[in-house]
Amino acid sequence: MNLIEQAKLAKIASRQLRAIDGKTRDKVLLDFAKTLLANKDEILKENAADVAEARQNGMSQAMIDRLVINDTRLAAIAEGVRQVAALEDPVGKVLEERQISCGIHLKKVSVPIGVIGIIFESRPNVTADCAALCFKAGSACVLKGGKESYRSCKAITDAMKEALQENGITTDALMLGEKPSHEETEQFMACREYVDLLIPRGSKRLIRTVVEHAKIPVIETGAGVCHVYVDATADFDMADKIILNAKLSRPSVCNAMETLLVNKQIAQEYLPRITSLLREKGVSIYADESSRAIVEGLLEATDESYHTEYNDLIMNLRIVEDVDQAIEHIETYGTHHSDAIVTNDAVSRDKFMNGIDSACVYHNASTRFTDGFEFGLGAEIGISTQKLHARGPMGLNELTTYAYQLEGKGETR
Amino acid sequence: MNLIEQAKLAKIASRQLRAIDGKTRDKVLLDFAKTLLANKDEILKENAADVAEARQNGMSQAMIDRLVINDTRLAAIAEGVRQVAALEDPVGKVLEERQISCGIHLKKVSVPIGVIGIIFESRPNVTADCAALCFKAGSACVLKGGKESYRSCKAITDAMKEALQENGITTDALMLGEKPSHEETEQFMACREYVDLLIPRGSKRLIRTVVEHAKIPVIETGAGVCHVYVDATADFDMADKIILNAKLSRPSVCNAMETLLVNKQIAQEYLPRITSLLREKGVSIYADESSRAIVEGLLEATDESYHTEYNDLIMNLRIVEDVDQAIEHIETYGTHHSDAIVTNDAVSRDKFMNGIDSACVYHNASTRFTDGFEFGLGAEIGISTQKLHARGPMGLNELTTYAYQLEGKGETR
Repeated sequence: MNLIEQAKLAKIASRQLRAIDGKTRDKVLLDFAKTLLANKDEILKENAADVAEARQNGMSQAMIDRLVINDTRLAAIAEGVRQVAALEDPVGKVLEERQISCGIHLKKVSVPIGVIGIIFESRPNVTADCAALCFKAGSACVLKGGKESYRSCKAITDAMKEALQENGITTDALMLGEKPSHEETEQFMACREYVDLLIPRGSKRLIRTVVEHAKIPVIETGAGVCHVYVDATADFDMADKIILNAKLSRPSVCNAMETLLVNKQIAQEYLPRITSLLREKGVSIYADESSRAIVEGLLEATDESYHTEYNDLIMNLRIVEDVDQAIEHIETYGTHHSDAIVTNDAVSRDKFMNGIDSACVYHNASTRFTDGFEFGLGAEIGISTQKLHARGPMGLNELTTYAYQLEGKGETR
Repeated sequence: MNLIEQAKLAKIASRQLRAIDGKTRDKVLLDFAKTLLANKDEILKENAADVAEARQNGMSQAMIDRLVINDTRLAAIAEGVRQVAALEDPVGKVLEERQISCGIHLKKVSVPIGVIGIIFESRPNVTADCAALCFKAGSACVLKGGKESYRSCKAITDAMKEALQENGITTDALMLGEKPSHEETEQFMACREYVDLLIPRGSKRLIRTVVEHAKIPVIETGAGVCHVYVDATADFDMADKIILNAKLSRPSVCNAMETLLVNKQIAQEYLPRITSLLREKGVSIYADESSRAIVEGLLEATDESYHTEYNDLIMNLRIVEDVDQAIEHIETYGTHHSDAIVTNDAVSRDKFMNGIDSACVYHNASTRFTDGFEFGLGAEIGISTQKLHARGPMGLNELTTYAYQLEGKGETR
C-alpha cells in the first residue's frame, strides 16, 4: 500500500480513536509492552537481518550501534511504553470553562490532533516511542522510517497492531510506510487532506527537507546550536562546572553546548583556565582572533563555525564586549533552542533572560536540562525549535489540540 | 523597499519590541488612535483616490463598500485601537511555574512571537486592526494588502508610525508592502529567516495560495462551511430560531450556516415548515433527492454544493439517517469551523459533541457565536480552522508564544 492510501486509512481510524476512553488506551499500551516482549524472537531476528544488510552496505559502526536491538534494549523499549501508559490522560482535559455573555456555557477541551505523520531516520526504537505517544494522545500515526531499519520497525509495529486487535481497535491506527519512494514521501508531506501534523525527527538535513516540501503544518525538532555566555561577574568555579557539563556530558545531543562566549573583562584570566580544562578532555576549539591572542594553539573560527552544530568534541569560542553583544551573537548564529548565562549581576541576567529569543533560557545552569523528562512532562516526542503550538520539550499535552464545546438553550445572536 | 528587506528590518525591530513594557505599548496604541483622527483629512483623501481608481477599474459596488473609509468608519477604527489598548497585556504572563527535580526553578512565560506577516485583501480597516493587535502582543508586523487599497493602508500605517516615533520606538515595527510583485510576495511567504508566522485574511483562494507557497508556519483563518443538524428529538421552535439566525443574521460571514441536515424521522413534518420559513426570507435551497420528494421546487444539490461556502442567501439541505450519518457528512464536507446539533437527546448530543472534529461545536445554539468578542477574548485577529497553536477565535493570547526561563545555582546534569 502506498503512503497516501495508508494516511487515508489512518484518517478514518482517527475518528474511531476519538471515541476510545483513556483507560482503554492505557490497556492497549500495556498490552503493546507485552506483545513487544512476546515477539522478542521475531523482532531480534528481523533486526539482525537489518543489521546484516547495513554491514554489507558499509554502514558506519556508530550508525550500526543505533540500529541494533538486543534483549536489554527491547526490555527498555517495552518499559518506555509502560511508562507512557502510566502518564496522565492528555485528552478531555477542561482547559477553560465559563458562561459567555449570551448565556451559553463554554468549555475549552483538549482533543486529539487526528493523524500525526512522523518522518525519522534509522533508530528503530523511535517506532515504539512515537506509536505509544501518539496513541496515548488519541491520534492515529503514520510512520516513515529509514529503509535500513524497515524490518525492525515492521516487527515493532506488528506487535502494536496485535495489541490493537486484541482490544478490538482498528489496526489502521498505526501505519508504517512500506519503503515509499522519494516522490511518494513528498506527496505525503503535502497531504493536508489526511494528515494534521508532521514531525521530522533526525538530522538537520532531514528536517530541512521536510520543511521545504511540507504543506502540512510541521513542528521542527532538534537542531541545537546552544550557547553558554560567561559574564564579567561570573563565579569561575560555577562557570567551569556548567561549561564542562554542557559540552561533555553527552556531546552528541541537541542540548549540548556548541559555542562558548566570554566577556572580554575576564577573558585574560578565564580563557587559559577553561580552554585547558576542555582540551584535557579532548575538545577541539575554534576561536576568534582575540581568544587566539590569549591562548595558543586554538583553531581559527569562521562565520560557518558559529553556525555549526558539531554534536561532537568540537566547539567554538568567542570573546564578546558585553551581554548585549552576547545576545547579538546568539540571535545571529543560534537555533533558538537553549542558551545559558553565567553571571552574578541582575542587570545582565534580566537582559539575557528577556533578550534571548530561544525556547529555553538558563541563568546559572547547564543547557543539558532541556528535556521533557527533566522538565517534568513525563515524556517527550522531541524538542521544538519553532514558535507555534509547541516550543522546547514537547510532551503529551503538546500532542493534542483543543476544541470549544458550547452548550446552549436555544441562544441566537 | 522590497518585502524581504522590509521583513529583515522588522526582524531587527522585533528585538527592540521585546524590551518594551506593556504600559508603553498601550501608550503607543492610544497615541495611534489620536494620530488616526488627527490625520483624518489625509486618510480620507488617500482613500478617495483608491475608491476613484477602483470605480474606474470597474470594481463591484459591494467591494467598493468594503473599501470606503468615511468619518464614522474612521472613528470606529480609532475606537477599535483604543479597545485593544485597554485589554490585558498578553506578554510576560507566567503560564506555569515549578521547581524541577534537579532544583532549578522553571517558569513558562508568554513572550512575543517576533515578526508576524499578514496577507489580506482590500478592506483597509484590517491594517489598523492587525497593526494594533500585533503591537499589543509585542511583535513586529509586516502587512501585505491588496493593491486597490494601498493608498488608504499607507495613510493608516503612517499614522501608526507617527505614534511609534513620538514614543521613541523604531517605525520598522510596522511595515506595509509597497505593492510587491507576485514573485516578491512568494519569496516573502518562504522567508523563514525573518518572519515567524504568516496569517492570511480573506477569501478561500487567497488562503489556499498562501498555504501552497508558504514555508513559514501559517495559521489558516476563515473558511467556514458550517452545519446545523436537527435531530429526531429536537424542539422545532428552537430549531427554527437557531437555523434562521445561523443563516440569516449575517449570511456573508464565515460562521453562518451553509448546510442544514435533518433527521429522517422528522423530515416529513419539519422540512415543509423550515423550508417555507427560509424561502420567505429569500433563501435558495439546494437539496438531496429525499428532501425534494417532500418539498417541491428545491434545487438539486451535488457533491460540490455540500463543499460550497456560499456566504449568501443560498444553502444546502440534506436528510440523514441519524446522528452518525450527520457526523459523517460534516466530517466529509465541513471545514472544521463551527457546527451545531439541535436535540433533546443526551446520547445524540454526546456523540455529536465528541465526534465532530471542529474548532467549535454547539448544542442547542447558533453557530454565529464563534467570534473572539462573543467568546470573551476581547478581540480577534481571525478564526483559525486548523489545529496547531490556535483553534477557533484567535485572540491576543494566541498571538504570543512561550519560553521556558530557568533559574539555577550552578546545576549540572
